[in-house]
Amino acid sequence: MALGARPDGVRRHNRSTLLRRLHTLGAGSRTELAAELGLNRSTIKALVDGLAAAGLVTERAVAPNGTAGRPSLLVSPRPESLCVLAVDVAVERITVALVGFGGRILVGRHRPVQRGDTEPTVVIERVAAVAEALSLGGLRPAEVAVSVPGIVRRADGLVHEAPNLRWTEVPLGTLLGEALDLPVAVGNDADLGALAEHRRGAARGVGDVVYLSADIGVGGGVITGGLPLRGSTGHVGEVGHMVLRPGGRLCYCGCRGCWETEVGEQALSRALGLPADASRRRLVAELRTIAEKQDTMHGRLDEYAGWLGVGVVNLVNLLAPELVVLGGLLAALPPDLLAGVEARARDRSLVGRAAARSVRIRPAELGGQASLLGAAELAFERVIAAS
Amino acid sequence: MALGARPDGVRRHNRSTLLRRLHTLGAGSRTELAAELGLNRSTIKALVDGLAAAGLVTERAVAPNGTAGRPSLLVSPRPESLCVLAVDVAVERITVALVGFGGRILVGRHRPVQRGDTEPTVVIERVAAVAEALSLGGLRPAEVAVSVPGIVRRADGLVHEAPNLRWTEVPLGTLLGEALDLPVAVGNDADLGALAEHRRGAARGVGDVVYLSADIGVGGGVITGGLPLRGSTGHVGEVGHMVLRPGGRLCYCGCRGCWETEVGEQALSRALGLPADASRRRLVAELRTIAEKQDTMHGRLDEYAGWLGVGVVNLVNLLAPELVVLGGLLAALPPDLLAGVEARARDRSLVGRAAARSVRIRPAELGGQASLLGAAELAFERVIAAS
Repeated sequence: MALGARPDGVRRHNRSTLLRRLHTLGAGSRTELAAELGLNRSTIKALVDGLAAAGLVTERAVAPNGTAGRPSLLVSPRPESLCVLAVDVAVERITVALVGFGGRILVGRHRPVQRGDTEPTVVIERVAAVAEALSLGGLRPAEVAVSVPGIVRRADGLVHEAPNLRWTEVPLGTLLGEALDLPVAVGNDADLGALAEHRRGAARGVGDVVYLSADIGVGGGVITGGLPLRGSTGHVGEVGHMVLRPGGRLCYCGCRGCWETEVGEQALSRALGLPADASRRRLVAELRTIAEKQDTMHGRLDEYAGWLGVGVVNLVNLLAPELVVLGGLLAALPPDLLAGVEARARDRSLVGRAAARSVRIRPAELGGQASLLGAAELAFERVIAAS
Repeated sequence: MALGARPDGVRRHNRSTLLRRLHTLGAGSRTELAAELGLNRSTIKALVDGLAAAGLVTERAVAPNGTAGRPSLLVSPRPESLCVLAVDVAVERITVALVGFGGRILVGRHRPVQRGDTEPTVVIERVAAVAEALSLGGLRPAEVAVSVPGIVRRADGLVHEAPNLRWTEVPLGTLLGEALDLPVAVGNDADLGALAEHRRGAARGVGDVVYLSADIGVGGGVITGGLPLRGSTGHVGEVGHMVLRPGGRLCYCGCRGCWETEVGEQALSRALGLPADASRRRLVAELRTIAEKQDTMHGRLDEYAGWLGVGVVNLVNLLAPELVVLGGLLAALPPDLLAGVEARARDRSLVGRAAARSVRIRPAELGGQASLLGAAELAFERVIAAS
């Protein structure tokens, strides 16, 4: 239930709203900002003056758009004025970056990880070392957020299970918070990928989005009505473990026929006739070759595309997205395969047929940085809410 | 993106919040209301005085709870002061009721419908006739909301597809609005059932809920973080058409192996060995007999329970509910069958295992009135937001 509002909360709410607007969409004139926030000119002026005094924005005059009159003042976020530390813990590499107000990566590093070398203590040491190196330039992050390929309890950053890292019940938020002496938030990689693609990638401005990402596992993130679907605990979105083929292949989760067993990295290798230990680079190269030859539909990927389609139809029926964004390995699938899955999602789903608008399927735009940038967004949400 | 707030909106926001509180939870003392809304005593007094002057609430002194001091003033909603017309269009009957402020049915009627006799014009005429009869007592509804077993566009109440009514692209909101000369909202029956069970039934106070209801079809409604999951268009939740058995039974939607074909009314009849045209009454009687004999697990319902479990596991992985509420025919399933599905949902879902709290499965509490009461809630949301 919504709480009562008090007049003394209004100014703070408006300040956060303005910070969020500048962070997400970048610079805007005072006139634009006043219109977008539904506030009058004097209120906007007071808010902007406050942000300028705190060093968070700069203002400069720009010539008005071919019209006579006073030049408008363009308000821009100052990237270095406020930054967060974003961390992406993946199976094969750890990426750490300082991301500035406005969403740009100010400085970043990534380190390869040997498979199996993902002990929590090792990961935490490496992140702390890189964070210290990055901070040498004088930038001090206000918050930290970490992306992890696992099931995370949002409240305290406990990683319940991250099968491909072989983590169970790792209190990552607490441990990393102690190591860095900063507040740390932890999120699921696909949830954060969805957030980043929604704010800054293929799903900008789209209200209802399903983001699917396949690497070793298959994860999903959902945006609904413009907001991330998280549930009370943040466990939402284990799409890879939707059972689609009862009695099918055994999944590590203990079920048979999980979607992941038909559309994850191993399934893709199998479909392409590659050896089980083929590198991701080889897999992607093979997909590019197929795309260039445009032979998908007659080829080896028919059955794979069929299973991808079944799962997408289910998600369209359940969640009615306008857009399905495919990330990770799925972003490399040939365009005509995606077109086939899109046609199926439109024709075979009740919701796809009924909705006046047709569901679209598009590859992700942020590539390997989606989860990292999503972690930065998670950290900025907390910074802005607290500011 | 959130808009800016203005001080003149604060009073209105607080008034709506208080109306919503009284409507959903019933009477409360001024002290309780002030604490719940986070407002001081003078602000609450001004708000309550305003509602009392408008005739929406009554106040009476109650003896304080065993303590000395001034008696507290108990603020109660006046049911007749504000009412809405709720309509539930089902395949076998149309129910119409006037529901008062606070959520109680003031007066209601239902009429059986012959299968096939669900032409939109006939339905609208009947609803209008009953509405007129109900209003003879002098109660005038402020808004109307209708529950329909189909895919609905929330914005204007267009029913895209309601297969069991044989409706396609019926502008029910517009047509009924003209017939009644009142604003009409339309919602999906399972979405509204979820809303009602969340506000007034088995899911009171639970933040993340999946409501499943089987009759001829199988529908679902989702509550996440305490709010209905609707997406931008209101098409969310066609769980019955999750394909779980590729190559399985043909569904009217054109796919094979939809969940509905394994757990809907027909599937239940089949599992029980009843003729395909067995009445719902007979079906429910048969389920009661099984429950009394407690022979489910050795019996005819094993395979049925298996398919119910597969779908529930998928939904738990996708949406991480704390509680799954089973409505319609599913509410009549034997308790030990539900216990088996619950155990499966806990053991077989990644999310179920990972979440510290275990998912529970419970029968609905509002029985055949869930969708009707949910429609009333939908109408009240609009009344309160506009008041």
